[in-house]
Amino acid sequence: MASGKARARSIRQFVPILEWGSDYRKDTLISDLVAALIVTIMLIPQSLAYALLAGLPAEMGLYASILPLVAYAIFGTSRALAVGPVAVVSLMTAAAIGNLGLEQGTSDYALAAITLAFLSGAILLVMGVFRLGFLANFLSHPVIAGFITASGLLIAASQMKHILGVDAHGHALFDRLATLIGNVGETNLITLAVGAASIAFLFWVRKGLKPLLLSLGLAPRLADILAKAGPVLAVAVTTLLSVAFDFQGKGVSIVGDVPQGLPPLTAPSFDLEIWGQLLGSALLISIIGFVESISVAQTLAAKKKQRITPDQELVGLGASNIAAAMSGGYPVTGGFARSVVNFDAGAETPAAGAFTAVGIALAALLLTPLLYFLPTATLAATIIVAVLSLVDFGILKRTWTYSKADFAAVAATILLTLTFGVELGVSAGVVLSIVLFLYKTSRPHIAEIGLVPGTEHFRNIDRHKVLTHPQLLSLRLDENLYFANARFIEDYILDRLAHDQPIKHVVLNCPAVNAIDLSALESLEELNRRLFDMGIKLHLSEVKGPVMDRLQRTHFLDELHGQVFLSHYGAMRALGPVDGTKPKLAAE
Amino acid sequence: MASGKARARSIRQFVPILEWGSDYRKDTLISDLVAALIVTIMLIPQSLAYALLAGLPAEMGLYASILPLVAYAIFGTSRALAVGPVAVVSLMTAAAIGNLGLEQGTSDYALAAITLAFLSGAILLVMGVFRLGFLANFLSHPVIAGFITASGLLIAASQMKHILGVDAHGHALFDRLATLIGNVGETNLITLAVGAASIAFLFWVRKGLKPLLLSLGLAPRLADILAKAGPVLAVAVTTLLSVAFDFQGKGVSIVGDVPQGLPPLTAPSFDLEIWGQLLGSALLISIIGFVESISVAQTLAAKKKQRITPDQELVGLGASNIAAAMSGGYPVTGGFARSVVNFDAGAETPAAGAFTAVGIALAALLLTPLLYFLPTATLAATIIVAVLSLVDFGILKRTWTYSKADFAAVAATILLTLTFGVELGVSAGVVLSIVLFLYKTSRPHIAEIGLVPGTEHFRNIDRHKVLTHPQLLSLRLDENLYFANARFIEDYILDRLAHDQPIKHVVLNCPAVNAIDLSALESLEELNRRLFDMGIKLHLSEVKGPVMDRLQRTHFLDELHGQVFLSHYGAMRALGPVDGTKPKLAAE
Repeated sequence: MASGKARARSIRQFVPILEWGSDYRKDTLISDLVAALIVTIMLIPQSLAYALLAGLPAEMGLYASILPLVAYAIFGTSRALAVGPVAVVSLMTAAAIGNLGLEQGTSDYALAAITLAFLSGAILLVMGVFRLGFLANFLSHPVIAGFITASGLLIAASQMKHILGVDAHGHALFDRLATLIGNVGETNLITLAVGAASIAFLFWVRKGLKPLLLSLGLAPRLADILAKAGPVLAVAVTTLLSVAFDFQGKGVSIVGDVPQGLPPLTAPSFDLEIWGQLLGSALLISIIGFVESISVAQTLAAKKKQRITPDQELVGLGASNIAAAMSGGYPVTGGFARSVVNFDAGAETPAAGAFTAVGIALAALLLTPLLYFLPTATLAATIIVAVLSLVDFGILKRTWTYSKADFAAVAATILLTLTFGVELGVSAGVVLSIVLFLYKTSRPHIAEIGLVPGTEHFRNIDRHKVLTHPQLLSLRLDENLYFANARFIEDYILDRLAHDQPIKHVVLNCPAVNAIDLSALESLEELNRRLFDMGIKLHLSEVKGPVMDRLQRTHFLDELHGQVFLSHYGAMRALGPVDGTKPKLAAE
Repeated sequence: MASGKARARSIRQFVPILEWGSDYRKDTLISDLVAALIVTIMLIPQSLAYALLAGLPAEMGLYASILPLVAYAIFGTSRALAVGPVAVVSLMTAAAIGNLGLEQGTSDYALAAITLAFLSGAILLVMGVFRLGFLANFLSHPVIAGFITASGLLIAASQMKHILGVDAHGHALFDRLATLIGNVGETNLITLAVGAASIAFLFWVRKGLKPLLLSLGLAPRLADILAKAGPVLAVAVTTLLSVAFDFQGKGVSIVGDVPQGLPPLTAPSFDLEIWGQLLGSALLISIIGFVESISVAQTLAAKKKQRITPDQELVGLGASNIAAAMSGGYPVTGGFARSVVNFDAGAETPAAGAFTAVGIALAALLLTPLLYFLPTATLAATIIVAVLSLVDFGILKRTWTYSKADFAAVAATILLTLTFGVELGVSAGVVLSIVLFLYKTSRPHIAEIGLVPGTEHFRNIDRHKVLTHPQLLSLRLDENLYFANARFIEDYILDRLAHDQPIKHVVLNCPAVNAIDLSALESLEELNRRLFDMGIKLHLSEVKGPVMDRLQRTHFLDELHGQVFLSHYGAMRALGPVDGTKPKLAAE
């Protein structure tokens, strides 16, 4: 019985729909349907636009917004996350396939996008099953912030060609701008007018529409939601204008034929050479997508005191991407803006996502003929307005004030992403964060400490008036002791002693030492021997339980010429009165 | 005046010979001369043998033992370090040039060795001038131990072909053994007899000669030094046998022509393509050579209460390698065994090294004709006996007992070095050590703590009988807070609270938190907001000075809903008596 119960729990854990689906009620249904309707209206132009950004035909954006949402509804744990195409992952998809040297618009390019979704899904599933979600933690906040800002600029720049109606290419910002400026003389003025007007309208919708609706007496939430429908209005109006004034005949780029109907059944390429070429990109897309998704999911869950399970989220997103690969889509993840709208519109369960999928499926069945005349400049305008809100140079100032290491990571990520593209930018950011962390821990803070008069507390002699003893050197080690700093600490102590002859005892105060690895242990052994050769005893104080347990498995404590004291005060009392010398104020 | 003095000091700092040379005395001279004589006798067979190991003509071993020693005497800071060809660096030289696809015995191969010495010297000099010696700290002790053990096995295996007189090739152990076994039928029996007898003799010299000499009444130090002359005796005897019985005519490989005279003036290749191919290897050789050298130099200096300057050691070793490149040598570093002999024989200053150089120069001028008939099997035997003392599988047991992460680093380094060669082995070991360290710090120890009755101390509730309060959760964070663990800590706390409803206050006890980076700060801000949404206040206690300084530059302390307490006891007293609930023993 017990094992049957455990099995049932473990199945539910991997298929969360069994959990929330079992007590699904009518009022939940209504909330979910309303949220789904609003998200569908928002998602139609977005899915078309992001497919354009990824260099794919518009319908692939719609396909990526149907089955993947159903898969997430079954396997995901967030109740408000709205999965589908998103800007940054679309940009990364274009960069990844561009690396293969394939041209946009070809069937090989589309197959590569499907394969990328498949590989990304497989990686996410593997990470979920093996609980490797912690890998995403190595993307530090500054690196993510820098990457998102740079990506926003790259995306906006990439769309400028659609606004001007000219050609431009290259992955890095400067390449793109250079070819764009070279071709600026060929600007199509009608395209430019449509693009510029759409941008202006969409910015006004963001800033001006909501206050207007509020002043007209609408409820704030309704005003908020209506403002999100701005892109749909822009799409409708510019499509009508395009039909009325024959934009196509005047050289304006339009969306053209979008196949009508449900997504086709597709399969990824199984060419191992292509897998090898796409694997690195798929890993980056998976991790970036997961990080973007998990942070919004956690924020929204916390607002309702719900919890999401990061490792199960990997499974949910993995299933979504596999579904995308099987139904003509491309890599998807949880989108920030859409999820917030979904949450605000009242989504109660992942079923809202499944209902959104039905909405998009209906659009694919019924609305695609209407999209024929839609100018691509309108889609580019929706992208530009959406991504410019991602650009935040404030992070540079924040990090500069707080920590130069974090600033270096942000600045390098932004510069490298803009100069060399998304993949190199984010990889370099991660490596730099790790290198800076290792560098900091390899040169730890070591405080010489003394007794605060009248207490049993010890403080840094440079910051406080404290009592010290001429024959006793008390050093607080403010870091784990490990291979990268073992020699530094050894050298620091020996250098310190070279200038101070009367010292007979060195006590290392260890409350901040959470671990001592073998390299550091051997350094301590060596230090113990060398100090003894100099007539000095090495002692430890306030060693933590887990560290002490480990030391007891070695000969170190037998070989130590000094003692291990439970408290530093105890050490000072036991060692202080050597030959009657009195303690003195460090400041004297 | 002052600036002149400072300049003089800074020149002395970079040219230590000006320091110790200015008070050089007659008794120091005699000590240095005796030590130099003994090291010369030891170095002659070693330099020939290690050149053979590196795949170079024997005379390059002698050349690498002349000018480099003089350069080190001028720029080095260790008074006992004996610089010259060493086993591990010779093996790495062979591996590096083998990667280029050059064949041993060609002039291109020799030029590559000279270029490698030049690049290695340049890297060491740059590291010294820019004080980058700390980079060597990222080679953890387990990685070094594993690498040295595996190198010892690889070197011994590489010499088996000389003992058997057959052909064998490949960088990895298994390749080598496979080709060796394939050719074992062609074994030259005389070569085998010479090799086996030399090995047996040299092992006996190590184990049996010293006790014998002692029982004959010799002083222990003299007995020790005489035992080091064993290889010279083996060289002399086998050379005489080779002449007497015409080994050359019987197919025994002999050293052959060794040019007589002082080292030629040489220059490295300046082909940038070759530089590119050798640079990675040169970097590894520099760091491995520096680590080997610095550890023996520090140990010997400590015995005489002297200090060496790691960054100046880089300059000394760099100058040595540049000197090697200019005088027909190949990469050199401070050798472990020879330095100990030099120290024990009484070397007082680096001048002992310069005198050794004179000794080797005399050997190159006068003794080379005598080496013509020396069987290479004898040299191979001296190498095998020397390197087998490097092999220490005990490190596997030590690390297994102490820490599984250290064990993994040792085991991986040994296995990868044996399987894929020295360069990949040591690189993988370094990367693995770093990954394991990051993994550990990404999942920090978090202790729930309670008050030890009758004191103001707090301890882990799982280890001690302590008092806790039902509305107060006290957590001690045993790690720096940084990007890799920020989300882990956030998740841990939220998970912990999900199971414990009455909690109103969470106090994070931070004496072991030495740094909080921006990612962790943002995590704390998020945690503060989320807890507040749940009706819980977040507090901190015992935040360290440098961490507090940094937090004060942000809005965090203003936004924090709880307080920052100087002591955790203070926090418990201030927060404990919420609505009169009494503290209870955690064990109850």
